[in-house]
Amino acid sequence: MVQLGANRYGKAEVRVVHVDRGAAVDGGDVITDRNVSSSLSGDVAGCYLTGDNTNVLATDTQKNTVYAFSKKLGHVEPERLGLALAEHFVATQGPITRARVAIEQYGWTRIEAQPNSFHRSGDYVRTTTVIHDETAGISVVSGLRDLTVLNTTNSEFHGFPRDEYTTLAETKDRMLATSVEASWRYRSVDVDWADAFAEAKAALLSTFAETYSYSLQQTLYAIGTRIIESIPDICEVRLAMPNKHHFLVDLDPFGLTNDSEVYYAADRPYGLIEGTVLADDAGPEGLAWN
Amino acid sequence: MVQLGANRYGKAEVRVVHVDRGAAVDGGDVITDRNVSSSLSGDVAGCYLTGDNTNVLATDTQKNTVYAFSKKLGHVEPERLGLALAEHFVATQGPITRARVAIEQYGWTRIEAQPNSFHRSGDYVRTTTVIHDETAGISVVSGLRDLTVLNTTNSEFHGFPRDEYTTLAETKDRMLATSVEASWRYRSVDVDWADAFAEAKAALLSTFAETYSYSLQQTLYAIGTRIIESIPDICEVRLAMPNKHHFLVDLDPFGLTNDSEVYYAADRPYGLIEGTVLADDAGPEGLAWN
Amino acid sequence: MVQLGANRYGKAEVRVVHVDRGAAVDGGDVITDRNVSSSLSGDVAGCYLTGDNTNVLATDTQKNTVYAFSKKLGHVEPERLGLALAEHFVATQGPITRARVAIEQYGWTRIEAQPNSFHRSGDYVRTTTVIHDETAGISVVSGLRDLTVLNTTNSEFHGFPRDEYTTLAETKDRMLATSVEASWRYRSVDVDWADAFAEAKAALLSTFAETYSYSLQQTLYAIGTRIIESIPDICEVRLAMPNKHHFLVDLDPFGLTNDSEVYYAADRPYGLIEGTVLADDAGPEGLAWN
Amino acid sequence: MVQLGANRYGKAEVRVVHVDRGAAVDGGDVITDRNVSSSLSGDVAGCYLTGDNTNVLATDTQKNTVYAFSKKLGHVEPERLGLALAEHFVATQGPITRARVAIEQYGWTRIEAQPNSFHRSGDYVRTTTVIHDETAGISVVSGLRDLTVLNTTNSEFHGFPRDEYTTLAETKDRMLATSVEASWRYRSVDVDWADAFAEAKAALLSTFAETYSYSLQQTLYAIGTRIIESIPDICEVRLAMPNKHHFLVDLDPFGLTNDSEVYYAADRPYGLIEGTVLADDAGPEGLAWN
Repeated sequence: MVQLGANRYGKAEVRVVHVDRGAAVDGGDVITDRNVSSSLSGDVAGCYLTGDNTNVLATDTQKNTVYAFSKKLGHVEPERLGLALAEHFVATQGPITRARVAIEQYGWTRIEAQPNSFHRSGDYVRTTTVIHDETAGISVVSGLRDLTVLNTTNSEFHGFPRDEYTTLAETKDRMLATSVEASWRYRSVDVDWADAFAEAKAALLSTFAETYSYSLQQTLYAIGTRIIESIPDICEVRLAMPNKHHFLVDLDPFGLTNDSEVYYAADRPYGLIEGTVLADDAGPEGLAWN
Repeated sequence: MVQLGANRYGKAEVRVVHVDRGAAVDGGDVITDRNVSSSLSGDVAGCYLTGDNTNVLATDTQKNTVYAFSKKLGHVEPERLGLALAEHFVATQGPITRARVAIEQYGWTRIEAQPNSFHRSGDYVRTTTVIHDETAGISVVSGLRDLTVLNTTNSEFHGFPRDEYTTLAETKDRMLATSVEASWRYRSVDVDWADAFAEAKAALLSTFAETYSYSLQQTLYAIGTRIIESIPDICEVRLAMPNKHHFLVDLDPFGLTNDSEVYYAADRPYGLIEGTVLADDAGPEGLAWN
Repeated sequence: MVQLGANRYGKAEVRVVHVDRGAAVDGGDVITDRNVSSSLSGDVAGCYLTGDNTNVLATDTQKNTVYAFSKKLGHVEPERLGLALAEHFVATQGPITRARVAIEQYGWTRIEAQPNSFHRSGDYVRTTTVIHDETAGISVVSGLRDLTVLNTTNSEFHGFPRDEYTTLAETKDRMLATSVEASWRYRSVDVDWADAFAEAKAALLSTFAETYSYSLQQTLYAIGTRIIESIPDICEVRLAMPNKHHFLVDLDPFGLTNDSEVYYAADRPYGLIEGTVLADDAGPEGLAWN
Repeated sequence: MVQLGANRYGKAEVRVVHVDRGAAVDGGDVITDRNVSSSLSGDVAGCYLTGDNTNVLATDTQKNTVYAFSKKLGHVEPERLGLALAEHFVATQGPITRARVAIEQYGWTRIEAQPNSFHRSGDYVRTTTVIHDETAGISVVSGLRDLTVLNTTNSEFHGFPRDEYTTLAETKDRMLATSVEASWRYRSVDVDWADAFAEAKAALLSTFAETYSYSLQQTLYAIGTRIIESIPDICEVRLAMPNKHHFLVDLDPFGLTNDSEVYYAADRPYGLIEGTVLADDAGPEGLAWN
């Protein structure tokens, strides 16, 4: 005999763009470009077992709700939209006891001196995931992904164990590059979301640059530590950092010397470092990372 | 003050192709095309805190180990390669207490009547993830992804609640399509991996086809149930099934009738159904899904 | 002063799926899954110069036309849909003197014994491009892309020149793999499209397998030759074949011998061979490749 | 009988990163991140016909040459690297009569106040293609791709013809967004490449913003015109501009008014406008666009 285990359903990737006309300080427009995914859980076993949709708010309705709330809330921070949507689903749908709203936000920059014109800024994608659970409460995890950073020096790698499959040479100077995916858990929902994001991103960038690194793990830990120490509202940081290897090209066969000048950027395989940094007084994570 | 939380590091996406020459029944070659990712955990905090790599088996060494084991084991099922690699890392590296090996395997088909020639079969990607933990033991989760299936009929969707944001019409006949990502947990490591995979895939396809569906959730549950009932070695199935919406095109403005003939395939947004089916006597999942 | 040069505009990537219910020999359904892109040229300079849309059939209308013709024509070969659409645009829009219709068609396979159920077959994408020009006439170029093939042996590469930047060793045995993009030009529009496609694909696969290769160029030429010789309706073949390098892994450091067994599949860079094979009596290409 | 037609072969996507240490005005590093593809043509028929590689400079050698020239030339503009490489291949390989070098260049920005640290700037990719032909001479076509721009207003679309398949409503105000792919042909190789690129990009952005648009075609032509008028070294501009549709969401069913605030960003299908703007005195294009 079998039973239904953990489950959720929803509408993924609702691409909604909001224009707040004339809302900029100089009278220009403000645009907000988001990709919103919602998923719901609760008393919906009937749907799985017999196709009874009585308790299943349609994913199409979830999509409509994203549009309606985008209109109502305007150009707020993504965390506020996520909180409002998640609260709405749980509050208005009796059988729904948990809502998860994940938002990606894409950057746009005003074209110089133009009130209505923008170009996309592709340096990173801002993210947030709100979980609202009737029992476990509300959590907010925000972050960013696809922020690619590179240090041309100040990175070593040596002292690692050598077994029968080890061929890697030790190095006292290498290029270090990674594409950061960072998520940080907030202690509460009473946060200045814009400030917290800006400070976390700044801490991430400056720490990556300032850390003399003996391993990418060390850099990861330094970044997580700095974010927690800089933003009291954050109690936990999770980082996934692929080591985007840049290998020195051997120019000797061509009678040339490579004084740490010419590298090739490898695609695969790549190192992948994943780690968590926690404040000592971080509360329980609950469902935050679900 | 902060502390290090959960972490792992490894080499991702080692693309290794193995040829077993003349190993086919008819004397042709057998090729095995894999993408192997390993990650290790254990007593490696020193690396994060101070850049001390004493206990850190280099990701480059992990890559080499994948190559060496591919030679030693040949064209075994991916589960066996994963089990051997994970066991090796934990057994030979004192500080490493847990290894995770995730493998994707790509299909190739012999070109007719040719012993050495193949074309890629892109219908799905076979997957497996082995976790070997000194304390929690060994787990194997296998499955597939990117298996896209479609029913032209036998799907309804109605009876769902209507709130102020609901505009969706009920339907007694729709096209149902999804791209299945399925993972199943085995009860042990003493399994005929090839048979189990073949049977699980067959169960998935036939159940998708045979289920008269009142919701994609119902189809998901039916698939999970059938897999567990068909393969005694499997105790849990997790499925993620995006609803790849196909909408009937309104041909009325052109004086044409659309008798469920012409659909447009939408990209985004899409419904996303995620669910778990468990055998009643499934053992604890432990770290299997980490 | 400036002037308008070559231009075209249209609707790209109309994803249309057609179901012909009960049309299979055994009473099952037949589905046709296409991605249709149309583009038009003609007396449309006013639109570019002053925004005068008088002669500009809206791209939205082009999309609707694709849907309507998909209904009217049903599950014909893609060449026939392309021909009908291209003819329609030129015939009905006075200012439009040229139409280009490009179609990608995706494969689906019936799930065994199921009349209404299918799984996607991802081995390759079938393509066709029809150009209908009031002056230059009608051309059809068909083909396929993303057909990945591999020979485990019967490939050498040596005898190439060595300059100051050459480090590559000669080889008498290597693995040869490529992802074929092939396009063939038909002599007329009076062709059995299904047969021609099937024969061209079969010729491609068997020639790739049967050619003992001293360079990927040689394999390319052999494929093009065979297609032209096998299908009298085809007068020209263009092929783009990336050399998907598979390098032997050096296992010596691990005390293992690699008897052409273990390879790693590289991503970038890759060789890229592009070539044309023409029948001696091929007519002028006209606009076929535009 | 068949014959060999147009052909070329080479190494694609050599990912090379160059560091010029301390070369910035403030003593920081300068990095140059490129993806270089070369392809050669000439007296290489023997390779296609019989696998005779005597005249075939190996693609591996081409890759090495890219690395060596990256070292020798340092952080020059991509056009200079392309010119040097293309000239080299034709000048040193007797049988090679034509070389094509295509370069993509990715942007990096110094992390504030850090001499050795960078983050990737993903707003667009800079491109250049150099063709060096023994007979036809040398051409340079440069440009960019993936520059996504958006106007929140100042765009109308009406006055288009209405046939039996037309359902689109006319509009006096819409959002206009596109992802620009632009290529411009230079009159000579004696150009200040950095200045020309900067001015062309600036002209593109400002013209997109300043053009009150009755069709995307009009915007395209205005951009091409402005680039040619602004940079005397440029004689031709080719643009491909997908119409990234943003549709107003109908909020009426929810009792809300959508005052041009909430849009959904559609993926497919999309309009695609492709056009050329030429200076009246542009010289013959020769092989520039091959």
